[in-house]
Amino acid sequence: MESRLTMNQSIFQKLEVSWEYPVYFTENLFDEKNRVFLEAICRKESDKKHRFFIAVDDNVAKAHPGLEEKIFRYVSRHSGELDLVAPIFSIPGGEAAKNEHAWIENIHQKIHSLGLCRQSFVVAIGGGAVLDMVGYASSTPHRGLRLIRIPTTVLSQNDSGVGVKNAINAFGKKNFLGTFAPPFSVINDSQFLLTLSQRDWICGVTEAIKVALLKSPDFFSYLEQHAPLLVNRDISIMQNVVYNCAELHLKHIRTAGDPFEFGHSRPLDFGHWSAHKLESLSQYRLRHGEAVACGIALDTLYSVAMGFFPAEQGNRVIHLFQSLGFSLYQPEMEQENFLHGLAEFREHLGGILCIPLLSAIGSSFEVKDMDAKKIQDAVFFLKKKNL
Amino acid sequence: MESRLTMNQSIFQKLEVSWEYPVYFTENLFDEKNRVFLEAICRKESDKKHRFFIAVDDNVAKAHPGLEEKIFRYVSRHSGELDLVAPIFSIPGGEAAKNEHAWIENIHQKIHSLGLCRQSFVVAIGGGAVLDMVGYASSTPHRGLRLIRIPTTVLSQNDSGVGVKNAINAFGKKNFLGTFAPPFSVINDSQFLLTLSQRDWICGVTEAIKVALLKSPDFFSYLEQHAPLLVNRDISIMQNVVYNCAELHLKHIRTAGDPFEFGHSRPLDFGHWSAHKLESLSQYRLRHGEAVACGIALDTLYSVAMGFFPAEQGNRVIHLFQSLGFSLYQPEMEQENFLHGLAEFREHLGGILCIPLLSAIGSSFEVKDMDAKKIQDAVFFLKKKNL
Repeated sequence: MESRLTMNQSIFQKLEVSWEYPVYFTENLFDEKNRVFLEAICRKESDKKHRFFIAVDDNVAKAHPGLEEKIFRYVSRHSGELDLVAPIFSIPGGEAAKNEHAWIENIHQKIHSLGLCRQSFVVAIGGGAVLDMVGYASSTPHRGLRLIRIPTTVLSQNDSGVGVKNAINAFGKKNFLGTFAPPFSVINDSQFLLTLSQRDWICGVTEAIKVALLKSPDFFSYLEQHAPLLVNRDISIMQNVVYNCAELHLKHIRTAGDPFEFGHSRPLDFGHWSAHKLESLSQYRLRHGEAVACGIALDTLYSVAMGFFPAEQGNRVIHLFQSLGFSLYQPEMEQENFLHGLAEFREHLGGILCIPLLSAIGSSFEVKDMDAKKIQDAVFFLKKKNL
Repeated sequence: MESRLTMNQSIFQKLEVSWEYPVYFTENLFDEKNRVFLEAICRKESDKKHRFFIAVDDNVAKAHPGLEEKIFRYVSRHSGELDLVAPIFSIPGGEAAKNEHAWIENIHQKIHSLGLCRQSFVVAIGGGAVLDMVGYASSTPHRGLRLIRIPTTVLSQNDSGVGVKNAINAFGKKNFLGTFAPPFSVINDSQFLLTLSQRDWICGVTEAIKVALLKSPDFFSYLEQHAPLLVNRDISIMQNVVYNCAELHLKHIRTAGDPFEFGHSRPLDFGHWSAHKLESLSQYRLRHGEAVACGIALDTLYSVAMGFFPAEQGNRVIHLFQSLGFSLYQPEMEQENFLHGLAEFREHLGGILCIPLLSAIGSSFEVKDMDAKKIQDAVFFLKKKNL
């Protein structure tokens, strides 16, 4: 029994929490003989029948009309381990999922009425937006159910789907509400990529280019060499791109020391201050990957203009985007409030702006401010060169 | 550059996140010379003007009519460090705060329109329910602002206010929606306790009895010896009770190995399966502390009836509650669905019931099931003895 002897005393509390989760790479996930889904769900408790429901992106459901039946067959074959407690339900794909808050309540209602617990599962199949929304909705009932993400686009398989964040949009601000909630398991099935539109197929390569520019000259060269095959939808090249991008991304989260982003710095957000703004200014006409391509091009040119990054390497970056078919100039870049993106990014980071810029392919550093005039010069360059 | 050579590959991701926060014990927090609030807010960045708003429990505002002006004086005296960006706003105290979801949206709207960032602060002054609700509301914009909790009741100062959880009620289920979100700082000001009703003053002692029963025979004896002084509102005894209870609670979170409750076990939830149910069955006529007193009495008698816990020690537990003025029998205990509390607790824990029971004062263990007949016997005993 301790007595409080002084007027001001304090106890300093410290805690540490660990998470671990596998990211599987597979093909034909729900084929009867594929055991990846079973492993993903049973990996902590193998002697139990696991309760779960499935939310699927309606774009995926449409592109894979046999999916639902395949899942039912899989589940009934493994009925000792799997207990699908509700009909599969579909959610509109794309940014719509993150703008319509009724989906959140809908999922909360489901978790409540099905009596799901903290050790029950929510399985989300879809693109990044659907995974983000379902992930957020699942992270608060009982302070978080177990989430299995099955990303179906290049972008979600190599980037957002393997990370620890989720979010929805609110008050016109992208990702305004969200949580840090590491998934229980992630399953990347390359077969889902085959039915993507050419636009979505290519879009996702942007984050691979980004992470290569920040972390790996070898990966950047690989992307340059294989750009024509990527455009021609070579699936084995795409599998390599997804695997290596996901791996670099996971390694960054694991080793950079700030997975829950307590600090101001976001080294992976290269090109993102303008990308977020371009997405909302274009009212999501631009996909995230397209907007990031523009943002990377802009901050690459800016890095060159400031003398940080060799012009010849800058040309390689622009050339790679061109060879993949990206449009790098967007009229929204000339709107008066385009540069507000910097202030909004500062607010999102926590009051101190940290912009990653390039010093070489594979190396970045951070600046605390940007020169508005030089950004406009870069915009003008993109426009003039018709990029 | 790695190539994917096999069909099924996986990457195993591991992460670790650390939190630290001080829990201060002070008096007259907003006196001009008291520097605890300044330290609580500036402790990571001392060279910055910190943006924050304050939400206050209207019970506290009413009981301390000078509080608002005192805060304004304090803030303007320290205007180099403190930037109060909005009028102080008050929130209905008690469970109402957790039932009315409009408050969540209201706080989100504020954070949005004030342009607060992840490094801005929300300061919550009030009882456990207000802290829970404000904490939850602040934990999702930008994936979590910095929260300073200023608990004003015995219960929140010694228990909920120093922990890592928050929640609101939904679908008639207590704490259905919430997050794990360690606070940035906690400040316990014992002056707030002076204006509590006798009911709230005594209510909060329940969690101290609980943690003493689970962890510390010395603390239990201290509570027995000082029960008359506690009833007579001796503030220095109460300061000791709050400090020691908070310390045991913090130590448990820090050392028991599962601060975010990934497992099934909740060793601190002694007496809570029935307490939660009694709160909702009584439509919150019973305060949390009162319901927990009943729940502890019940599981103490059950521990005795099962032969786990010496009857003489069981008598000491009942006697301590009596000497503090608690009513241990409630008519809701005889309602047919009272025992559903066990199933709901099982759902909340994640499908496997873990009920802490006593083996001695200061020592507990867990059972996976309870005998309904023996619970009813315990209820009957409480009723018969008019406890």
